[in-house]
Amino acid sequence: MIKRIEHLGIAVESIEESLPIFETLFSASCYKQEVVESEGVRTAFIQIGESKIELLEAISLDSPIAKYLEKNRGGFHHIAFEVDNLEDELDRLRNEGFTLIHQSPKDGADNKRIAFLHPKSTKGILIELCQEKKSDTD
Amino acid sequence: MIKRIEHLGIAVESIEESLPIFETLFSASCYKQEVVESEGVRTAFIQIGESKIELLEAISLDSPIAKYLEKNRGGFHHIAFEVDNLEDELDRLRNEGFTLIHQSPKDGADNKRIAFLHPKSTKGILIELCQEKKSDTD
Repeated sequence: MIKRIEHLGIAVESIEESLPIFETLFSASCYKQEVVESEGVRTAFIQIGESKIELLEAISLDSPIAKYLEKNRGGFHHIAFEVDNLEDELDRLRNEGFTLIHQSPKDGADNKRIAFLHPKSTKGILIELCQEKKSDTD
Repeated sequence: MIKRIEHLGIAVESIEESLPIFETLFSASCYKQEVVESEGVRTAFIQIGESKIELLEAISLDSPIAKYLEKNRGGFHHIAFEVDNLEDELDRLRNEGFTLIHQSPKDGADNKRIAFLHPKSTKGILIELCQEKKSDTD
């Protein structure tokens, strides 16, 4: 089951330059910055209600964010939804005919297991599903 | 104060064709469709947690959504945040140096008063601020 918008991912050229703008905009402070080496990104999170804004900066040329910024000047990159059971939700969506980028969960930022759907089956929207890692089983 | 993500606006060529895809994706039904003549759009809303997904279809050639779809194949259009006092928040952001598209609130869909910020001051992100209309004063 999809429970809530977990975060909205925004691609930026520079977190150092962009973060103060978004902190002022939202009157809220970044609560975490984190590098995800496997994705080649640095991330910064701001909490708003039950959701977060995730700024994404590329730290390598083959990062998905670097490739995105070659074609775009920055902006909306993806939207992530929290689910209660990631494997069940991936099975459900596969059976419904959606195209999955990740057939099974992988590690993401902010202590999450994640998987992306391909935008070709979601009207051009890059969608992430995520579930908090259980601390007692990791 | 910014309280939550009120909705994420997604531009689509056709609500009739796209809505069943998003309803299946989210396992949730559209709770409202509404035409906003002043913006030249038809909208459809799906609730997810404390936020909504708003599909936007152009109903006239000079609609902002029609212009958006001339340049894009569809996708993320804007993000809306609920605030507790729209005038105060517009004043605050104007004083902070943000560029406002609307200097004062106007009527939007879903019983809201709304105002947009210009993406040139928000790193390319089109941001809407909104506040529920008070039923006893309208």
